[in-house]
Amino acid sequence: MKIESVDFFYLSMPEVLDVGDGSQDALLVRVESGGIVGWGECETSPLTSIASALAPMSHSACKPVLASVLGQRFDDPSDIARIGDLVRANSFDQLQMDHTLSGIDIALWDLMGKKLGEPAWRLVGYENSYRKRPYASVLFGDTPEETHAKVSRIRQAGFSAVKLGWGPFGRGTAKEDAAQVHAAREALGADGTLLVDAGTVFAEDVASAAERLEALSEARVHWFEEPFHNYALEEYGQLASTSPRVALAGGEGSHNAHQAVHMMRQGGVKFIQVDTGRIGGITAAKQVADQAVALGVTYVNHTFTSGLALAASVVPFAGIEDHVICEYPVESRSLAQEIAGNPFPLDADGMIRLNDEPGLGVQVDVAALQKYLVPTEIRVGGKLLYQTPILK
Amino acid sequence: MKIESVDFFYLSMPEVLDVGDGSQDALLVRVESGGIVGWGECETSPLTSIASALAPMSHSACKPVLASVLGQRFDDPSDIARIGDLVRANSFDQLQMDHTLSGIDIALWDLMGKKLGEPAWRLVGYENSYRKRPYASVLFGDTPEETHAKVSRIRQAGFSAVKLGWGPFGRGTAKEDAAQVHAAREALGADGTLLVDAGTVFAEDVASAAERLEALSEARVHWFEEPFHNYALEEYGQLASTSPRVALAGGEGSHNAHQAVHMMRQGGVKFIQVDTGRIGGITAAKQVADQAVALGVTYVNHTFTSGLALAASVVPFAGIEDHVICEYPVESRSLAQEIAGNPFPLDADGMIRLNDEPGLGVQVDVAALQKYLVPTEIRVGGKLLYQTPILK
Repeated sequence: MKIESVDFFYLSMPEVLDVGDGSQDALLVRVESGGIVGWGECETSPLTSIASALAPMSHSACKPVLASVLGQRFDDPSDIARIGDLVRANSFDQLQMDHTLSGIDIALWDLMGKKLGEPAWRLVGYENSYRKRPYASVLFGDTPEETHAKVSRIRQAGFSAVKLGWGPFGRGTAKEDAAQVHAAREALGADGTLLVDAGTVFAEDVASAAERLEALSEARVHWFEEPFHNYALEEYGQLASTSPRVALAGGEGSHNAHQAVHMMRQGGVKFIQVDTGRIGGITAAKQVADQAVALGVTYVNHTFTSGLALAASVVPFAGIEDHVICEYPVESRSLAQEIAGNPFPLDADGMIRLNDEPGLGVQVDVAALQKYLVPTEIRVGGKLLYQTPILK
Repeated sequence: MKIESVDFFYLSMPEVLDVGDGSQDALLVRVESGGIVGWGECETSPLTSIASALAPMSHSACKPVLASVLGQRFDDPSDIARIGDLVRANSFDQLQMDHTLSGIDIALWDLMGKKLGEPAWRLVGYENSYRKRPYASVLFGDTPEETHAKVSRIRQAGFSAVKLGWGPFGRGTAKEDAAQVHAAREALGADGTLLVDAGTVFAEDVASAAERLEALSEARVHWFEEPFHNYALEEYGQLASTSPRVALAGGEGSHNAHQAVHMMRQGGVKFIQVDTGRIGGITAAKQVADQAVALGVTYVNHTFTSGLALAASVVPFAGIEDHVICEYPVESRSLAQEIAGNPFPLDADGMIRLNDEPGLGVQVDVAALQKYLVPTEIRVGGKLLYQTPILK
């Protein structure tokens, strides 16, 4: 069999707000081979990735992404890694390539699973799909009192793990941040899992981040996420070895497996956060998960959009029993909710688990998505290069 | 003053061949403020960068690049770094952003220089513009005899520095490569500067690359370029400390200053090669040059297209007297040659030097370029987002 078609669908909420919510638009990918259809989703700027998929060749290492996908042999799972390697070699100088490849790779795993009648998590090499513990992710309140009230409500809703981030954290004094963190721990109770996300607020300033460690340690936070931006490897490494030791988390911005591995080896993070929709798809993410196990680092998915993206993001570590914590979209927009519904509801213990259905085990609701389609057209040199295909 | 307009022009040869020649198309950037025009060039996939400049916002950290440029205050050189920081913050999740920003940043330096009546190399902080020694860059011959003949011709043409790369190198045995390298040294003579470019042929295979070190050392190569791909930091570091020591060069793929700094610190390269059209422009490249000086690493430009790209690529190290070696386009297509002619011809000693004219000191030949314009149109949601502007 060969890859017969790859189609991109730019979906968007009627209005996109200037807020940190990545569920306001989506780039859905549909791949077809031998009458079977696979679905994927890129975590990307939709128009930019469509352009990278189809842009005329600039030179031998700057080809459109689809030049290395369409018509390729597609018989067994090893073809997916082979196609990814081809894309990286032939579109090396297409910077956007990794984000675009991500959705294609995810769709190829869905397609291969359906073709072989196996769930994707088994095809990537796992024997079991273990339960994961979703955490509730919210912003810090403006005051410690607000934070206390927020966390109390979340605890009462049944979550035993909560992530607090952004808001005032890191923007005032270390003492103010300490009050926030202690308020959160008090409201959560001694047995809850408390995660703190700095949202890269310290950029490259190790000293300022280090001033927060004592309170974070006292409040027994499970991880301290993204104190610095994604390229500050040395700064991560310095903070990781500063006393009191607090486990660092990071890596969501990685757009290839190498960057995530550097974040573990040189950045010294104890939790590697991978967005399957950015890093090159399930194939690259699984490489990171394998490395994480070898290095004694815990793998965590980064996901805040659809059920389809969630399925793809859990596959790479579905079979690692003791990597339990899981990001789980709870506040996404209707577009993201309607892409594949909620295929993984919380069970009685507040846990989720990937199912045994072929591929990713989710159903894309093409009827519901028609209203979100953004008609798009690209013409180059008088030729129609792209026009939104029919979503079916 | 404010940034009033930023226009992109997609230029291409009538036919683009599937060869490793990046001079077959170009993305020219024209910025205007207060009646003055500045020019830049991105080393990118033109359509993909146009899309990233204008793509509708996905969320607060995935905005179109131009959202952080148009209308910005533009009074003194510090505004250029400020605008770049804004772009990186607001378009963080637009992977293509760095390549797009590069051409804009270059155009802003040209514009600021014209506004203030100063050459860009002075505005970035240098007192002098020193002469650089261009090297001739060619492929290895298929046999040592062919390589010998090639290098002899280059030597006779007046070049004292030559770079040989790609072709059979690294694809056969270490013994075959040794014969190639020795043939090159013999033809060049004992006093010539011999550079070898592996073209990432060893990917991540340190052992195979290390097998070549003895011959490279015997032939006294000045640098051994890109044995591995750009993300193989640890592999670079291992090879750098393997005996016999041969100075490594790399970094052309870096799309921000951090990656280039990692290549020096962790990769252990002794020559850091920076493409100003990819790394985020002159601003980011100058940061790398400053770090290179601090770390005792030699900065080298990576350029193989136009006179405009060459000017932009030399500015970041124009004032570093002892960083002398310089890449220089010698085989680019007519498009690249016609963008700005050849503003920096070799002098009697085979050297080049940036001039004292305001900005980049080059003239873009808009009349000559009309024939290369690729009419492009992007419509999103029924709205015309981009249409090739008039090139004037």
